[in-house]
Amino acid sequence: MPEQKAPQDLQLILDDIYRELTPRLGEGKVADYIPQLARVNPQHFGMAIVTTGGEVHRVGDAEVPFSIQSISKVFTLTLALGKHGENIWHRVGREPSGSAFNSIVQLEHEGGKPRNPFINAGAITISDLILAGHTPKELIGEIVRFVRYLADDENIVIDHEVARSETVTGFRNFALASFMRSFGRLDHPVEHVLGVYFHHCALAMTCSQLAKAGLFLAAGGTNPLTGHSVVSRQRARRINALMLTCGHYDGSGDFAYRVGLPGKSGVGGGIMAVAPGKASIAVWSPGLNENGNSLLGSLALEMLAARTGWSVFGP
Amino acid sequence: MPEQKAPQDLQLILDDIYRELTPRLGEGKVADYIPQLARVNPQHFGMAIVTTGGEVHRVGDAEVPFSIQSISKVFTLTLALGKHGENIWHRVGREPSGSAFNSIVQLEHEGGKPRNPFINAGAITISDLILAGHTPKELIGEIVRFVRYLADDENIVIDHEVARSETVTGFRNFALASFMRSFGRLDHPVEHVLGVYFHHCALAMTCSQLAKAGLFLAAGGTNPLTGHSVVSRQRARRINALMLTCGHYDGSGDFAYRVGLPGKSGVGGGIMAVAPGKASIAVWSPGLNENGNSLLGSLALEMLAARTGWSVFGP
Amino acid sequence: MPEQKAPQDLQLILDDIYRELTPRLGEGKVADYIPQLARVNPQHFGMAIVTTGGEVHRVGDAEVPFSIQSISKVFTLTLALGKHGENIWHRVGREPSGSAFNSIVQLEHEGGKPRNPFINAGAITISDLILAGHTPKELIGEIVRFVRYLADDENIVIDHEVARSETVTGFRNFALASFMRSFGRLDHPVEHVLGVYFHHCALAMTCSQLAKAGLFLAAGGTNPLTGHSVVSRQRARRINALMLTCGHYDGSGDFAYRVGLPGKSGVGGGIMAVAPGKASIAVWSPGLNENGNSLLGSLALEMLAARTGWSVFGP
Amino acid sequence: MPEQKAPQDLQLILDDIYRELTPRLGEGKVADYIPQLARVNPQHFGMAIVTTGGEVHRVGDAEVPFSIQSISKVFTLTLALGKHGENIWHRVGREPSGSAFNSIVQLEHEGGKPRNPFINAGAITISDLILAGHTPKELIGEIVRFVRYLADDENIVIDHEVARSETVTGFRNFALASFMRSFGRLDHPVEHVLGVYFHHCALAMTCSQLAKAGLFLAAGGTNPLTGHSVVSRQRARRINALMLTCGHYDGSGDFAYRVGLPGKSGVGGGIMAVAPGKASIAVWSPGLNENGNSLLGSLALEMLAARTGWSVFGP
Repeated sequence: MPEQKAPQDLQLILDDIYRELTPRLGEGKVADYIPQLARVNPQHFGMAIVTTGGEVHRVGDAEVPFSIQSISKVFTLTLALGKHGENIWHRVGREPSGSAFNSIVQLEHEGGKPRNPFINAGAITISDLILAGHTPKELIGEIVRFVRYLADDENIVIDHEVARSETVTGFRNFALASFMRSFGRLDHPVEHVLGVYFHHCALAMTCSQLAKAGLFLAAGGTNPLTGHSVVSRQRARRINALMLTCGHYDGSGDFAYRVGLPGKSGVGGGIMAVAPGKASIAVWSPGLNENGNSLLGSLALEMLAARTGWSVFGP
Repeated sequence: MPEQKAPQDLQLILDDIYRELTPRLGEGKVADYIPQLARVNPQHFGMAIVTTGGEVHRVGDAEVPFSIQSISKVFTLTLALGKHGENIWHRVGREPSGSAFNSIVQLEHEGGKPRNPFINAGAITISDLILAGHTPKELIGEIVRFVRYLADDENIVIDHEVARSETVTGFRNFALASFMRSFGRLDHPVEHVLGVYFHHCALAMTCSQLAKAGLFLAAGGTNPLTGHSVVSRQRARRINALMLTCGHYDGSGDFAYRVGLPGKSGVGGGIMAVAPGKASIAVWSPGLNENGNSLLGSLALEMLAARTGWSVFGP
Repeated sequence: MPEQKAPQDLQLILDDIYRELTPRLGEGKVADYIPQLARVNPQHFGMAIVTTGGEVHRVGDAEVPFSIQSISKVFTLTLALGKHGENIWHRVGREPSGSAFNSIVQLEHEGGKPRNPFINAGAITISDLILAGHTPKELIGEIVRFVRYLADDENIVIDHEVARSETVTGFRNFALASFMRSFGRLDHPVEHVLGVYFHHCALAMTCSQLAKAGLFLAAGGTNPLTGHSVVSRQRARRINALMLTCGHYDGSGDFAYRVGLPGKSGVGGGIMAVAPGKASIAVWSPGLNENGNSLLGSLALEMLAARTGWSVFGP
Repeated sequence: MPEQKAPQDLQLILDDIYRELTPRLGEGKVADYIPQLARVNPQHFGMAIVTTGGEVHRVGDAEVPFSIQSISKVFTLTLALGKHGENIWHRVGREPSGSAFNSIVQLEHEGGKPRNPFINAGAITISDLILAGHTPKELIGEIVRFVRYLADDENIVIDHEVARSETVTGFRNFALASFMRSFGRLDHPVEHVLGVYFHHCALAMTCSQLAKAGLFLAAGGTNPLTGHSVVSRQRARRINALMLTCGHYDGSGDFAYRVGLPGKSGVGGGIMAVAPGKASIAVWSPGLNENGNSLLGSLALEMLAARTGWSVFGP
């Protein structure tokens, strides 16, 4: 990678990206499968960068909280690796799924074992794994505390209306969980597991909070702002590898090709990305592309990567 | 990434890896779908590293030629990008396939458009693309000249017995090509396209030659040994991104997780890997794992990455 | 078809079949997905024939009640056709499924519309259809009354322990129903629909009762024993057509080939078959073949068809 | 079944059907995958009935030859059963396919064994089976002689232009055959097997010829016009069973439901149907429905079945 950008350059780059994308705000399709997401103003756009050196850069609605949805899967995966280590791979694979993010077909083909921890079935399995020895309520509390610890911010909360709404309308996830249960692949009742899953997906965070929460992944496992050692250097790399190959559903290859950085998207329109050794980045724009990833968020990251020279794939 | 290893360290690391793996030589299953591959001695093991600074390190059978098979797809992809640029993505996708490397199912589901240029169907499509304006014989000659140019080695040849054997027994590839033709997705006769495909897969190269041929990908598009500018900096990154997400069939996620470097494997037991900014690596061990990738070759690269600290995923 | 057999001949044929199969009693695999089915003695074998002329022939355990399971789908389909006529085909197809009886794959491929009313997803849809305007409890009562009316027997009851057991362990059916709900294809809550479904599958009937209940299908829609007109002549034919093409999961083609009569099987080991214009037949033997149909039951029907000359496929 | 219709009634019924359908001639979509089929006038409509008593009734273009295409699969299946008996079921299944008629997916899933002899892959397998001991040319000659013998008509020929055209454009069938070859499921070269297959599909016959050729299936295996004993009574029934469950691709269930008679369709717009014990029927109208079966041909048979009372499914 080229030299670290000076802080003022990064802010200029962010400002340029925001200005260039402003005419396109509102593009893409806002997720509408639950009313709380459908109501979000599609004109929102925020972006935050936190460098491993500690500088923070923001633009647009970087301080407006949004529903992080599947981005939370990175945090529960990290928790699961902490609790169970590499044993989790007996329960979930680590291969890209190669099909729509909620497809049940592949799950049947593979005997109820999800292909990776970032598709819904895989994240539900992770929720089941970390439920061991807890009530759902306790575990949800632990997840919230963990994310607050990562971001060093006690103001992060779950949007309970979103969680409730998913509980009422999340038939596809009930189908996935019941299906895995029918293969004997869940240890806890479907309702408990989905209770955890729906709540961690309902975490509301700002771009700034999210970029801080992901900083340990850019910095070899330790958050340089707080000094908290979260995971080992090797584990940070491995989580980044999973984000790169599986982080964007059936658009993961495209994101790797265009952006060249590990990242994880959510249907709320957020993306958390990692430039190893350089920075953690969060972007939010609610309109989604055909793969369910933020349309302008992906574009903003592509612009950022091109202008900073940040890429894991070459000098 | 950590500091560049001193040359003597790299050679020691290679020697250690070879010594540690020696008791396991012969593990895995040698590809047997054509007699020429089945006859290869499973005890072979070779490895070569060429750094961007020009040092070459070798161990074991690094100077014994083997059938590079699917590794050649990186070279034809590079040619296709040179001839047609980003237009090739109208004909082939760039998403991981998420299923066995020769699966025809996904192809039907997606109307005959292969998911990426590294599965067989995708590489056959690339052969069709670069056939425009050529006879198969001319194009095969061009491919050989291109690989010689990349490796700066005029001794690289096609093993015509292997090519002939694939022609006689490659029914699955005939099926794939006929199937794509039935969707109107090939411009040239099936026999011509497969003629090209079978011949480039039959290229015989040593680990040293292969590591040299891949060096441009580690060095921003230009081979530092020859000064040949092969592709732009951006294109080198993008080819690396494709190798990382799609280079090992349905074991791509596992390779990214364990090794953390872009790479491309072939059923002959070879793997070409890239440590961006650092080195190009080739390894050869004929025994394959359950995903069709070299068992000990993958392991050797995992050991190398761990000991050098080379990984695209973190400091 | 050849001439009607004289009553004494039919009894002799039944006796012969029973004697010849006695050494094989216990073959096949008893359904074990719920304990109540797994506990059934695999040595049971019963068979009953009721001719359109009113003669009844029995052999073995023809008066022992067993769980009719999927055979009940014929009765709920008949009810649904009575309530909604040919409109039901907007909600469910009428093509053979060509895959395992509980496959969720095809369901996804076809947007949540089940292929026919005899696979689980299709029968669940039928339960949803006939729930309109009822509570689950009312509808279950109506189904029981309908089956009693068909068989002219007030002693037919639901085995509530079986129904309860399915409710607790029927994750696959919860998955199917949730999945259809996620496509907007169910009008009622999943729990209500499955409550109906699990209860009608838990009907306990003897071979004699079952043969009587199916007699209307052999006799142009009217039960000749009671004079009850159940459906029109055309509808009786159509239900028979559905049983012939879809009545035995992925063994329907084999059953048509070997037996040549419309029939519907259940995982409890029962089969109800129809010789149009001649007789209704029920057989019960708990051991299942690889397609989930009664092994000896299918064989007994094949022997019966060969010896009586009954076949819909030719003189 | 009701009493046999008097001859004059049958002719009146045919005349009525023709008159009622005349305003709709041209509906449906003519097969266009080869030019020779695409050129056929969509206004054609012919129908012929040959009763087991020997009466022949015709209407419309019943004496105009058309390409029988897949209907020929009934004749090659009959030949294969004659040569190899029930052993053919080791090579091909007898279950409905449950998906598009040329789907390659199910074939992969089932290791290259086609589900039934009437889908393309299955009929190609049948061609391979009966090639044993023959050159393709000899076998094609034998098939033509067999069909002439069945229809008692020496004027039946193959349209060699159609056969040639399939050879040039039949990529999907080359894919299917190559795919089966890759599973080791064909004994002869792909070109030989497809040579046979394309030629028997290119048989040109009139409705009258076709109805006569199918008469043995309506009459217990013996053609009552010629006295030729073609197959046993049991085998005639079994072929009828296969036609009923698998004769109309993914519209087989619908045809059984609406028409209630065994039948086999071809993309040329022909259908051969059998009323066991009553008559053999052929209809031709080139426009196809969404399942690839003759739109008006199916409708004409539905009208005929309703007006004669012919149905295998009930009195």
